[in-house]
Amino acid sequence: TMGAIARVNVHYVDLKDLLTKNSSLPVFGALLEGENIYEAKLPKNGFIVMGNEGKGISHDIQKLVTHKLFIPNYPANAQTSESLNVALAAAIVCSEFRRRV
Amino acid sequence: TMGAIARVNVHYVDLKDLLTKNSSLPVFGALLEGENIYEAKLPKNGFIVMGNEGKGISHDIQKLVTHKLFIPNYPANAQTSESLNVALAAAIVCSEFRRRV
Repeated sequence: TMGAIARVNVHYVDLKDLLTKNSSLPVFGALLEGENIYEAKLPKNGFIVMGNEGKGISHDIQKLVTHKLFIPNYPANAQTSESLNVALAAAIVCSEFRRRV
Repeated sequence: TMGAIARVNVHYVDLKDLLTKNSSLPVFGALLEGENIYEAKLPKNGFIVMGNEGKGISHDIQKLVTHKLFIPNYPANAQTSESLNVALAAAIVCSEFRRRV
């Protein structure tokens, strides 16, 4: 990075513990069986969980996901890759939340 | 990559030549002085030009950009980084084109 990491607050926490203790907030997870992110209702507050590129979000954490989001293919309905690089997927998810602000 | 590069058609071309010869198509460039991408009108066809992370789009190519697009800060109006990693910026731009399909 060009130093941008210095602007990010990084915390190492037990994710299951964090989500359980803040169960009043919605938990968004990027999952293949999710709702089209462009059409989903996105609130101002909540958690976004991104999974491991190969294995996805772990079973334990998936149970805590309240809203499943799916990044649709481009072109629409084309046979493309099943998954995106997790950084790119995170960028798209964050961008979509940002757009609704 | 997990082999996804095999799904992408890569061409090495003279960019100035390509854009000049296809001047009927709009050329979108990600630039700091551009229009908010979330509010801009985006067509189905055109070129998207992404610049060098440090130097941006070269002067020669900027002259051929017909539509300047800007990815706004998150949170809105916050003082954040001037530029994004080019892969992330490209993902956000492509996602926004895809959303309008």
